[in-house]
Amino acid sequence: MAAWARAVRGLLLDVSGVLYDSGGEGGGVPIAGSVEAVRRIKASGLKLRFCTNETQATREQFVKKLQGLGFDISVAEVTAPAPAACRILKERNLRPHLLVHNDLVPEFAEIDKTNPNCVVIGDAAENFSYANLNEAFRLLIGMEKPVLISLGRGRYYKETDGLKLDVGAYMKALEYACDIQAEVVGKPAKMFFESALAEMGVPPQQAIMIGDDIVNDVGGAQRCGMRALQVRTGKYR
Amino acid sequence: MAAWARAVRGLLLDVSGVLYDSGGEGGGVPIAGSVEAVRRIKASGLKLRFCTNETQATREQFVKKLQGLGFDISVAEVTAPAPAACRILKERNLRPHLLVHNDLVPEFAEIDKTNPNCVVIGDAAENFSYANLNEAFRLLIGMEKPVLISLGRGRYYKETDGLKLDVGAYMKALEYACDIQAEVVGKPAKMFFESALAEMGVPPQQAIMIGDDIVNDVGGAQRCGMRALQVRTGKYR
Repeated sequence: MAAWARAVRGLLLDVSGVLYDSGGEGGGVPIAGSVEAVRRIKASGLKLRFCTNETQATREQFVKKLQGLGFDISVAEVTAPAPAACRILKERNLRPHLLVHNDLVPEFAEIDKTNPNCVVIGDAAENFSYANLNEAFRLLIGMEKPVLISLGRGRYYKETDGLKLDVGAYMKALEYACDIQAEVVGKPAKMFFESALAEMGVPPQQAIMIGDDIVNDVGGAQRCGMRALQVRTGKYR
Repeated sequence: MAAWARAVRGLLLDVSGVLYDSGGEGGGVPIAGSVEAVRRIKASGLKLRFCTNETQATREQFVKKLQGLGFDISVAEVTAPAPAACRILKERNLRPHLLVHNDLVPEFAEIDKTNPNCVVIGDAAENFSYANLNEAFRLLIGMEKPVLISLGRGRYYKETDGLKLDVGAYMKALEYACDIQAEVVGKPAKMFFESALAEMGVPPQQAIMIGDDIVNDVGGAQRCGMRALQVRTGKYR
């Protein structure tokens, strides 16, 4: 066993495509061996964070779904983009127009959303309609300094019924239309990984990120000084 | 009058935002003075081409709508992206999956669309649904060499009820998701302007392009050696 591997004290696990494939009845299916793997990681004494860009549900709903699939997981162990975005909105007095999944809206319950001065985009799925995209675009183009905050920048992900466009594709559409650059909250943003490490109390040199996305999981973690592993499940092709 | 202006023999006119604002009942409203302007250009003996990226209708429907608004225009005077795309599809034995407006489909009547080996995207408007974008994405990502042909690359345009995202925004979404570059047919592609000039029989030095889009109309025409004027109607802000 390599010296660096012996030094590992914490693991960051991506969830969709690593622990389960989302979609369909019941919200998804576990990937073979993953329930047992989480159990063994926890039994080993390694610190563990679930580091997800999923924004189709509140953390509570997300955790409940995973518990239903058999995973040993709690809300306190999850690092997700919406709470990180809420911190930024509060710090900067930003009032968002939300282009997100209906089930994510409760995460923004305490945020003032009147007279929006920014747009927050997440994986809105069916809410990515022509009308909703035009609405978000019109708000942005009407702002003196358009602020677009994107919950992740993923290209696509795998659901049980096939690949789906992720928030990054729609972020690019709005960026292009408005000639702006979105601010990304979530993987691969450095601050997002740093939060997860701080929550574990483990320095980057002693942590490993495990994910199925070469850019958002592997690249993002490496830029923070972590090692990273890409699994061949999920969107891996 | 400047020497170059005396040498002008042909005009290329953008249509949406220059001659009329599209949308609403009756398909749009003429911009003040534009019906008369077209009449006077024709009476002056200048050659004229209507050079449009509009892809929400066949040329026949498009011309009928403009005639209904009072314009002196015929199908033979219109340069539009769909016929240009059809020439390319035939030359390269490409069988398209169409992500376009329902009313544009007849322009592709003679094109083999079985077992698609490329995607053609136009201003699909309401057809830009989450499901349709996922379908186009899945076809592209499943191709060995994904070919995406985009009928224009406009950012947005103005309709009577406000600004709308144009095909370019959705083109960018698919480009990003698939990590590819679309081939643009229509303005600002050089070949598109060259076709319009050839159809008029006027060299670029003796032609002026008039449009409301600084990139697609003005920039595209200038790269072909034409002069160009930007009007302050339409999407001009």
